[in-house]
Amino acid sequence: MRAAVFRQGDLVVDTIPDPELGEGQVLVRTRACGICGSDLHAAKHAKEFADLSARSGGRFGMPADRDVVFGHEFVGEVVANGPGTEGRFRPGTLVTSMPLTIRGTMVQGIGYNPEVPGAFAEYLPLAERMLLPLPEGMDPDHAALVEPMAVGLHAVNFAHMTEADVPLVIGCGPVGLAVIAALKLRGAGPIIAADYSPARRALATRMGATTVIDPGSASPYAALEAAVTPEGFDPARYAQLFGTSPRRRPAVVFECVGVPGVMQQIMEGAPAGTRIVIVGVCMQPDRFEPFFGIVKQLSVQFVLAYTAEEFRETLDHIASGRMDVAPLITGRTGLEGVRQSFQDLASPERHAKILVEPWR
Amino acid sequence: MRAAVFRQGDLVVDTIPDPELGEGQVLVRTRACGICGSDLHAAKHAKEFADLSARSGGRFGMPADRDVVFGHEFVGEVVANGPGTEGRFRPGTLVTSMPLTIRGTMVQGIGYNPEVPGAFAEYLPLAERMLLPLPEGMDPDHAALVEPMAVGLHAVNFAHMTEADVPLVIGCGPVGLAVIAALKLRGAGPIIAADYSPARRALATRMGATTVIDPGSASPYAALEAAVTPEGFDPARYAQLFGTSPRRRPAVVFECVGVPGVMQQIMEGAPAGTRIVIVGVCMQPDRFEPFFGIVKQLSVQFVLAYTAEEFRETLDHIASGRMDVAPLITGRTGLEGVRQSFQDLASPERHAKILVEPWR
Ligand SMILES: [Zn+2]
Ligand SMILES: [Zn+2]
Repeated sequence: MRAAVFRQGDLVVDTIPDPELGEGQVLVRTRACGICGSDLHAAKHAKEFADLSARSGGRFGMPADRDVVFGHEFVGEVVANGPGTEGRFRPGTLVTSMPLTIRGTMVQGIGYNPEVPGAFAEYLPLAERMLLPLPEGMDPDHAALVEPMAVGLHAVNFAHMTEADVPLVIGCGPVGLAVIAALKLRGAGPIIAADYSPARRALATRMGATTVIDPGSASPYAALEAAVTPEGFDPARYAQLFGTSPRRRPAVVFECVGVPGVMQQIMEGAPAGTRIVIVGVCMQPDRFEPFFGIVKQLSVQFVLAYTAEEFRETLDHIASGRMDVAPLITGRTGLEGVRQSFQDLASPERHAKILVEPWR
Repeated sequence: MRAAVFRQGDLVVDTIPDPELGEGQVLVRTRACGICGSDLHAAKHAKEFADLSARSGGRFGMPADRDVVFGHEFVGEVVANGPGTEGRFRPGTLVTSMPLTIRGTMVQGIGYNPEVPGAFAEYLPLAERMLLPLPEGMDPDHAALVEPMAVGLHAVNFAHMTEADVPLVIGCGPVGLAVIAALKLRGAGPIIAADYSPARRALATRMGATTVIDPGSASPYAALEAAVTPEGFDPARYAQLFGTSPRRRPAVVFECVGVPGVMQQIMEGAPAGTRIVIVGVCMQPDRFEPFFGIVKQLSVQFVLAYTAEEFRETLDHIASGRMDVAPLITGRTGLEGVRQSFQDLASPERHAKILVEPWR
């Protein structure tokens, strides 16, 4: 089959062996797969990505010296049922899945794994027991957004939001937009969002942000402070004496940028008692001053991915239209265009999510 | 009155004006005051301490260029009631207080404040409404330990411990020992504690640690892993696939060292899903790799001080003997010995808490 292969630091289209189905696997023809910020990072910093993966428990397991086919945000069509399957899905059924497959009793990640090609390829060997059929009438391409949108739902669930909480989303790339959509779904309000890019701020508004801030011209933290503090109340003096104040709405800041320095900015800017949720995936060492966290009694929750339940719930939200992902799809490409798309995605003005269509 | 004054980077005994009582204040004769790790830090890094205090909201408010009298862990005896007091405490009453005073409507910190001498001086101007009389029969000097022990209770309260949680305390100086005592009080078990110093490990055991580890010869995280993981269960594989595992006891790590690098060590060593509570006060910038937090979905809660309720509760625990602080008092000194004591406290083998007795 044809695939966009990450090889020696470059993305090349090549022919690789078709997947061989193992026990419990189903052959799925890839219909579309989103390009993720993590893919860009893995391509640009392959060695660091591999080293960090290995040092932190091997969850991603990408070796720097072998061919890898990226692609973990996919939708496809069942082609054939392999050995030991129950035949629950007829050929032609549209499906999605969390980016992992099960072969016999062995679980394997999809997307950064040299043993299993990801979805920038014509076919995928998926696990029958992990497959989710698309609800009737759903735009199939929207199912490629389930994975990144589930990340937002997971982050918001981890934040244990209540109605009192005021969220601020720092960074409105795909991760931040997913968080905004999940906040809207959970009934949060106001929803403050900040990004330097006008295009991304416009998308943030479409996804549900009620206040959008350009950090180049105004402070997101001033906006947050105004939203959490009732009139006629002197927060500086109160915070100085007692730290967290029960007389203001609690603040929750979602870090959706994932580059060094942002956490320190948040810790300096956030009101006392703020819960910070780290959703952006920063793969470099970071520097911060713990004293700001201490004086304000901040908390920092790191989150990753989603549960199977959250993934399924996200599919339902998108299928029903409660989460509108159409504005996020800003481009499409065949396999030959993957290399160029990786470059195009560097500019926040042009794109949010580009779908790779291997059969295009 | 006589006081140990921090002046131009040195600790000198000098005569300073007696406190003048403002509205609602009571004159208290200092009986004893503990030397805190923060005092050592403020003395050693006065400029950084002052700058950081200013940048982070001025909570401590210590200027680098003015005389300051340290001392915020005190017990004393009422001498006289000032203007506008209700006379609730007769002269001779033994009292303690959170380290702040109220003068009319102005709240002022005690311990790093050039406007109000701390308790390394003969007298204190305390607020009548903040005073807590010592319960009958309590060893008065033990009340000087209320402040540091309340820090431990506060940290443990912030961790929202349940019976399922397994705590690991990193660092068994006064802060770590206070956390251990609070964990014991809250019924936690096992309580794992780690420190390089044999003397501190011995104290940790006396305060309630059930497993003490010398990190020079064994990994505290291996001990934690063993405690949270049931037999016959492969945690590495499970964590790799699903992150936090519901099939093991949750881990809570208390950082009680407060120097750069410890947070990164904890993030590398801790099991997935661990809640990290930062109790040690690190005043330098720190460096860490967020990716470890992300992959393991760790949380980090920074805490500071205690509430008025926690302070009062700690006094009761100490007075009743439920918290035994006697082993922590390892030395006593008059004002002339304060400078030497600051040096002695650098060695963990010799001392936990030294009490300054200004009238000695
Ligand atoms: Zn992704
Ligand atoms: Zn202290």
